Amino acid sequence: MSRYVLVHGSWHDGAAWTDVADHLEKLGHEAHFPTMAGHGKDVPRDVDHGDCVASVVDYITEHELTDIVLVGHSFGGSVIARVAERIPEKIRRLVFWNAFIPVDGTSVLDNAPPAYQELFPILAAQSDDNTVMLPFEVWRDAFIGDADLDRARETYDMLVPEPLGPTVEKLDLSEFYRIMPTIPRSYVLCHDDSALPPGDPQYGYLANARRLGVFRLVTLEGSHEVLFTNPALLASKLGLAGRD
Amino acid sequence: MSRYVLVHGSWHDGAAWTDVADHLEKLGHEAHFPTMAGHGKDVPRDVDHGDCVASVVDYITEHELTDIVLVGHSFGGSVIARVAERIPEKIRRLVFWNAFIPVDGTSVLDNAPPAYQELFPILAAQSDDNTVMLPFEVWRDAFIGDADLDRARETYDMLVPEPLGPTVEKLDLSEFYRIMPTIPRSYVLCHDDSALPPGDPQYGYLANARRLGVFRLVTLEGSHEVLFTNPALLASKLGLAGRD
Amino acid sequence: MSRYVLVHGSWHDGAAWTDVADHLEKLGHEAHFPTMAGHGKDVPRDVDHGDCVASVVDYITEHELTDIVLVGHSFGGSVIARVAERIPEKIRRLVFWNAFIPVDGTSVLDNAPPAYQELFPILAAQSDDNTVMLPFEVWRDAFIGDADLDRARETYDMLVPEPLGPTVEKLDLSEFYRIMPTIPRSYVLCHDDSALPPGDPQYGYLANARRLGVFRLVTLEGSHEVLFTNPALLASKLGLAGRD
Repeated sequence: MSRYVLVHGSWHDGAAWTDVADHLEKLGHEAHFPTMAGHGKDVPRDVDHGDCVASVVDYITEHELTDIVLVGHSFGGSVIARVAERIPEKIRRLVFWNAFIPVDGTSVLDNAPPAYQELFPILAAQSDDNTVMLPFEVWRDAFIGDADLDRARETYDMLVPEPLGPTVEKLDLSEFYRIMPTIPRSYVLCHDDSALPPGDPQYGYLANARRLGVFRLVTLEGSHEVLFTNPALLASKLGLAGRD
Repeated sequence: MSRYVLVHGSWHDGAAWTDVADHLEKLGHEAHFPTMAGHGKDVPRDVDHGDCVASVVDYITEHELTDIVLVGHSFGGSVIARVAERIPEKIRRLVFWNAFIPVDGTSVLDNAPPAYQELFPILAAQSDDNTVMLPFEVWRDAFIGDADLDRARETYDMLVPEPLGPTVEKLDLSEFYRIMPTIPRSYVLCHDDSALPPGDPQYGYLANARRLGVFRLVTLEGSHEVLFTNPALLASKLGLAGRD
Repeated sequence: MSRYVLVHGSWHDGAAWTDVADHLEKLGHEAHFPTMAGHGKDVPRDVDHGDCVASVVDYITEHELTDIVLVGHSFGGSVIARVAERIPEKIRRLVFWNAFIPVDGTSVLDNAPPAYQELFPILAAQSDDNTVMLPFEVWRDAFIGDADLDRARETYDMLVPEPLGPTVEKLDLSEFYRIMPTIPRSYVLCHDDSALPPGDPQYGYLANARRLGVFRLVTLEGSHEVLFTNPALLASKLGLAGRD
């Protein structure tokens, strides 16, 4: 069986993976779910993208993990790409789940649709610590449309403001794209995810996935937050995406 | 539970929703399915797009309906957009099911693929009342490919000629796009629908859906006419698309 | 019930269809699965695209088959298009399964993504008979990502080197596109297939499908090689795709 390191996306912390990790363990896997710097409750938000990457690298190093299936969700895709640059020898496979895989030299937000590119800096300017909180209406419909309203509210309460900095930072991913062909890679795609504009030739999930070149594609029903709405199904698909 | 007003598409009348409405009612919802002006058996076909819109507005007004989940199928998408302009306060959520959401200032047919743009005026010119009847071969494969041949024929016999006028009329949707962000909205997408060219960046269903900005996406198996071929599944998905 | 002639893709021979054919027969259909010239074990690889087409035409003629549902997988899509040019009267319906439908005047490889356009001639130059063997890593992830590793290896051992010639030959398909509207046609699409870049506006499967104009779309879970990983499901979907 496999050793999973699950890297969360924006507004989340590692605990978002709790149910998925339980199901992975029931399937016989090992599951880790670190929280990135600047994320989680009551921590300073003044971090850059490299700090997020370092959290994951440090976790892996401290726990002496090798042979990892490294999973990145959403914004976490940009993080695992840079983790792969730093410790490629510890990674057995990269799994991007409805994740950003930024074009080299661009920021995560550059790869989001223009409406978000406009909205996020405005929201950050309204905060007192340059963070962005996702409006509930966006969360409810575009992110977790497959939950009922109670579950949407309950999970919204688990979110924390996202630092704008790491999202707008231009990322040098040249080393990632250079070594990418040497690490097997999978893309997991949820059919009911409209957090990015579905099917968009430039900004859709598959536009990100296609940057992987040769990769395994695993699809499933569910929204951008199927880790909350159907963790058993997601764990099962991560099992298929992560095996050799 | 919710109050659904189901707006049919071209060639159909309200009765096309009968089985879906039954299933919605079994799920505890209320379901209405008016017939638009110029549609149904033995009525004058000389209507414009505003007449179609007025039929739905009038139905809602006469029945004193409020808090509506307003569903539009196919051509009906262009109708519910304009109903929303007129009575936004009565609409709880808009649900577009494999529907047109025309670019402001364009006609429905402008948003259909070039082959239909050429074919429909020719068919209308061959009629004696400027209507278009869908050729059976198109119906059978592109619209209802998931039925067996008997069901395809049986449902074809339920169709009536579609007035060309409302389809080629340029629609001022500026008010719709202005108020759109204030009304929650969902897009329901059938995976096996080739009535519009699937995946087409300009003319596909998701190109329409993306005009909604932030929206809930609900996908299911089935063709453009899954209301006939799997009404229970469609009703269940409309339930998920329509809830708060 | 129907009479299926199943045309394999690159690296395969007719035997790849064995399990699907069994399931089609259980469903009451008749199933044939000829091997194209230059394919299979221990045969000369020095063939052109017309030889591949002739194999299928000859098989149909020798077995006096009529009223055929002609299925083409992958590269086989380009073959059945040209079979249709030669014996349209014997074909009841064309079914393209995750298949190429080349633009008139282009080669199959012209319709594959640029990475393959670069790779294949290099691999062929390294062979002693101008053939291309698919690297195992590509097979495992992009072609048969839904198998476990043992099944991926077992099926890889069934592959044979593909002659480059038929793949790079510019194909005159003007007659195919001329007669195409007279033959009913379906496209079967696997959601988890990344052998071609999924969702790509120019090189994706649906870009090929859309060239059919009016067609039936049938989707299913599974990879490019679902004939090995879930033959019962594929047979069932070919049944839906192939009926009148």
